Amino acid sequence: MPPGSPAVSVVGFMVACMESCGLFISLEGGDGAGKTTQAQLLAQWFRDQGRDVVVTREPGGTDLGSELRRLVQHGQDMSARTEALLFAADRSHHVSTVIAPALDAGAVVITDRYVDSSIAYQAGGRELLSSEIEELSRWATGGLMPHLTILLDVDAATAAARAGGNPDRLERAGEDFHARVRQVYLARAAADPARWITLSAAASIDSIQGQMRAAVTAHLEGREGTGTL
Amino acid sequence: MPPGSPAVSVVGFMVACMESCGLFISLEGGDGAGKTTQAQLLAQWFRDQGRDVVVTREPGGTDLGSELRRLVQHGQDMSARTEALLFAADRSHHVSTVIAPALDAGAVVITDRYVDSSIAYQAGGRELLSSEIEELSRWATGGLMPHLTILLDVDAATAAARAGGNPDRLERAGEDFHARVRQVYLARAAADPARWITLSAAASIDSIQGQMRAAVTAHLEGREGTGTL
Repeated sequence: MPPGSPAVSVVGFMVACMESCGLFISLEGGDGAGKTTQAQLLAQWFRDQGRDVVVTREPGGTDLGSELRRLVQHGQDMSARTEALLFAADRSHHVSTVIAPALDAGAVVITDRYVDSSIAYQAGGRELLSSEIEELSRWATGGLMPHLTILLDVDAATAAARAGGNPDRLERAGEDFHARVRQVYLARAAADPARWITLSAAASIDSIQGQMRAAVTAHLEGREGTGTL
Repeated sequence: MPPGSPAVSVVGFMVACMESCGLFISLEGGDGAGKTTQAQLLAQWFRDQGRDVVVTREPGGTDLGSELRRLVQHGQDMSARTEALLFAADRSHHVSTVIAPALDAGAVVITDRYVDSSIAYQAGGRELLSSEIEELSRWATGGLMPHLTILLDVDAATAAARAGGNPDRLERAGEDFHARVRQVYLARAAADPARWITLSAAASIDSIQGQMRAAVTAHLEGREGTGTL
């Protein structure tokens, strides 16, 4: 199925919810998993259905966030706690100025990384406790979680190869780090199947996008069925 | 008593502790209270006693902190949570790269603002819960608290007059804000007299410095007596 040709419809959802219920989707996975491409294709599919869509990312989805992203990725060395706090500050600002207003207006928000990235990278990769990072993110976001989180699962060697030249400080952390990150993602997805969809990033772009659209459609039909916004 | 002429001695403390026990002092109070001047005078007094001294401040005591200070004080509007997280990130980096290494090496660390500033300004002034800010600071610092905190208490009108032209975003928050901040400081000092010394910032520079030196000396004598580091 080529991207841009919706095989399924979200019209029912749109009519049921009008502008009063946004949809919040996060994409997760290692660098090189294809999240950016897939986010754009998914956004276009929603727009073709007449939905307002905001595509954003963490870190760096706001002006403040861009500065924080620069400090974390290309600045001096810092402790795991400092890094986690900067990501949390970025997330807090992102939620209050971008995500929450868009959801309030009924839009679809697709974010490239969210809370689960912090847990996977800072707890899984850098040996802080998951519970600490979760608590920090919960406070930073006021508890706002995605309706649906799509994991593009990519093995560490493939991620490293796709990332290519000029790796940033986090990317240089090595394959062991990425392997731990991946295991945290997979464990979180397995523990909460109502929120998570796990797709192999090794498939073709079109195949992944088709699976994402099907998963989103199934999720929306479930929301309509239960009356959950 | 003129600054630079120690009327009391910390030699006993120095001999007892050698390089194995640092001393951590924070100065607190509203802008315009004279903390910067007093920190320098107190540092000189310790140096005259042969102690290594690090004078630092929050926010902005590190390169990273300077960038965060700029973002908070002169950047775009942000939520109270975002601001609190940026201060916590600054503090975490400050502790791990400046304060803790200096204390480990046996130095005296004098910081212009620390945890109590966040509680007074973000909880007292901006209506987050004190318990939230305390928990955030505790996590950011690994629980490191000052041995002694000196409050230079200044009423809000005097602080505003002393701050002079070009107030930054926080300073523009107004007298009500500063009055709430002051009340939090006074309440915290009253609740923990073992850590806090409260001095009136309306006194002369020399008078305040003399009181500070006497308070520090009394604290050090107490530490020697109890064997507490």
